[in-house]
Amino acid sequence: MSVARIAVVAGDGIGTEVVAQARKVLDAVLPGVEATEYDLGAARYNRTGEVLPDSVLTELADHDAILLGAVGDPSVPPGVLERGLLLRLRFAFDQYVNLRPSRLWPGTASPLAGVKAGEIDLVVVREGTEGLYTGAGGSLHRDTPAEVATEESLNTRHGVERVIRDAFARAERRERRKVTLVHKTNVLTHSGSLWARAFQAVAAEHPDVTTEYQHVDAAAMFLVTQPQRYDVVVTDNLFGDILTDIAAAVSGGIGLAASGCINPERAYPSMFEPVHGSAPDIAGKGVADPAAAVLSAALLLDHLGHPEAAHRVSEAVAAELAARVPGAPLRTEEVGDRLAAHAAG
Amino acid sequence: MSVARIAVVAGDGIGTEVVAQARKVLDAVLPGVEATEYDLGAARYNRTGEVLPDSVLTELADHDAILLGAVGDPSVPPGVLERGLLLRLRFAFDQYVNLRPSRLWPGTASPLAGVKAGEIDLVVVREGTEGLYTGAGGSLHRDTPAEVATEESLNTRHGVERVIRDAFARAERRERRKVTLVHKTNVLTHSGSLWARAFQAVAAEHPDVTTEYQHVDAAAMFLVTQPQRYDVVVTDNLFGDILTDIAAAVSGGIGLAASGCINPERAYPSMFEPVHGSAPDIAGKGVADPAAAVLSAALLLDHLGHPEAAHRVSEAVAAELAARVPGAPLRTEEVGDRLAAHAAG
Ligand SMILES: CC(C)[C@H](C(=O)O)[C@@H](O)C(=O)O
Ligand SMILES: CC(C)[C@H](C(=O)O)[C@@H](O)C(=O)O
Repeated sequence: MSVARIAVVAGDGIGTEVVAQARKVLDAVLPGVEATEYDLGAARYNRTGEVLPDSVLTELADHDAILLGAVGDPSVPPGVLERGLLLRLRFAFDQYVNLRPSRLWPGTASPLAGVKAGEIDLVVVREGTEGLYTGAGGSLHRDTPAEVATEESLNTRHGVERVIRDAFARAERRERRKVTLVHKTNVLTHSGSLWARAFQAVAAEHPDVTTEYQHVDAAAMFLVTQPQRYDVVVTDNLFGDILTDIAAAVSGGIGLAASGCINPERAYPSMFEPVHGSAPDIAGKGVADPAAAVLSAALLLDHLGHPEAAHRVSEAVAAELAARVPGAPLRTEEVGDRLAAHAAG
Repeated sequence: MSVARIAVVAGDGIGTEVVAQARKVLDAVLPGVEATEYDLGAARYNRTGEVLPDSVLTELADHDAILLGAVGDPSVPPGVLERGLLLRLRFAFDQYVNLRPSRLWPGTASPLAGVKAGEIDLVVVREGTEGLYTGAGGSLHRDTPAEVATEESLNTRHGVERVIRDAFARAERRERRKVTLVHKTNVLTHSGSLWARAFQAVAAEHPDVTTEYQHVDAAAMFLVTQPQRYDVVVTDNLFGDILTDIAAAVSGGIGLAASGCINPERAYPSMFEPVHGSAPDIAGKGVADPAAAVLSAALLLDHLGHPEAAHRVSEAVAAELAARVPGAPLRTEEVGDRLAAHAAG
């Protein structure tokens, strides 16, 4: 019997290269993982016109988790894979927790002057199934001077409360036990009020967790001027999209950022992927950094109930980054071998 | 006959202190400005319960511009002054160009390592009358588990095209002549398509202007990692709110940021204000930095057709900042006197 059934979507460009290392590390720390590869992404789309056939969606549903490398290529029109593959999976598998940790690892430099390694250690819990991402909206009188276009942000007590609960649960497991709600309650009064009331209700059940509220514009600023102040940040889908890229930028770049699209109840498979793209410019050269893909595998392990294995993988990455000589060439395979050996260790 | 009729809303806290310096500078470079003071803000609200009486709105309409200090105090519930005063003025006076320049002035330090004074010089042209700021939306089954809340982003070809035109016009007057459109066209497909098509149409009329497009998450990241790359950025109301705070953060902080809410046709008065708040903690001590208020007065001068006077004011601020000794105490009045003398020059 396998310990876990993983669907692997290596994808395009460096996706295949970095996912190979993540699998190596997974095998090293959790022998017996059963992995099935799925060919999805720009290459398949260009070959067959298919983005995510229903039959594949059904097969994916029958796994414990999905490990994704990167999808995309300049040859594919923008939006096709984003909406047809990534967002479709998030919604189909009710992945309502979009988890994005940011750490300034020892050995990596922040673009911020005076911020030292170890000082940034935050996690953004971004809502993943509501808000402005549902596709609601439309347009009228298109291509005339009278054109109007709308986008609708849909928010439910159900959807808001469950992601806030998840954020508090994660904060309980961390040292600082602090949750920051980010919204724009002074302008988005309808949804802002819902978020604020749900947040207060959940906070009341967690007297041991410190809470604060910030408007999204202020949070974007403070992520640049005082990223150290954050522990767990919970926010809506679109704000989370923006804030996590800022958080990645101030803590070593999206090249090191891992993410998970999670259904905490495991009613559906969750999906884990590095935030970086397929990087066609360096694809096939064996020089892509697998660190973010490996850190995503650590999130996968944690989600599937193997926190010690997850911790060993993170520690392996930390040691690897700390040992790096700035500017020294990097070989994807070699990094993967070292990480697997260290994590197994 | 007066050269310009200005309504002055000094507001709360340090608002009164910094606006006094801005007026000093205005008088020095443009003698004959007629200024009328309006008592609006937290103090008036706490005294009378009034935020912006209709009669005052009517009187304000009869001015060439509004100079605003800062409104707000912890004693006022969040949202009251924001929606009732600031946003009401933006919509009532059709201030569709929310102009926010960011410069890393010589003498000021960026929180970004390795970014040198002079390297950041960008202006965000933020749409000011549409998008998610109209208040459209609502909620149902409030305070029950079935609650839903919506926010609607409303976008018209009229509103989108005019602000894009303004951005291109501004780019034409700058050295680099580059306009970056920021949106989230891969997710907000209805409004994103409208923005993208309007942008292409206007760009076609300006072959001398370089253009690029970025998703808002990427732009938020690049503002941190490569702020030098931007010249003019045009974007919607909410994205502009977030991006301008990041731009301010990387270029000396919101303490130095100026802004204008502009109706370019001058059909209604435009409003100019420092981005910083009323700062109750340092109010009344005479130590607030009037630089942002004075830079806002420069934007006012430019808007009213006095570009040379505006330039002299900016140059005075540049000289003042370059001469500052880090950590040396600052006296609001003295800075104002120096700026007025220098600008009068
Ligand atoms: C590709 C895009 C649809 C996606 C998003 O907006 O969520 C991406 O930016 C992300 O953050 O995962
Ligand atoms: C006070 C608030 C309504 C306002 C906005 O969101 O526009 C502020 O953040 C700004 O940027 O001027």
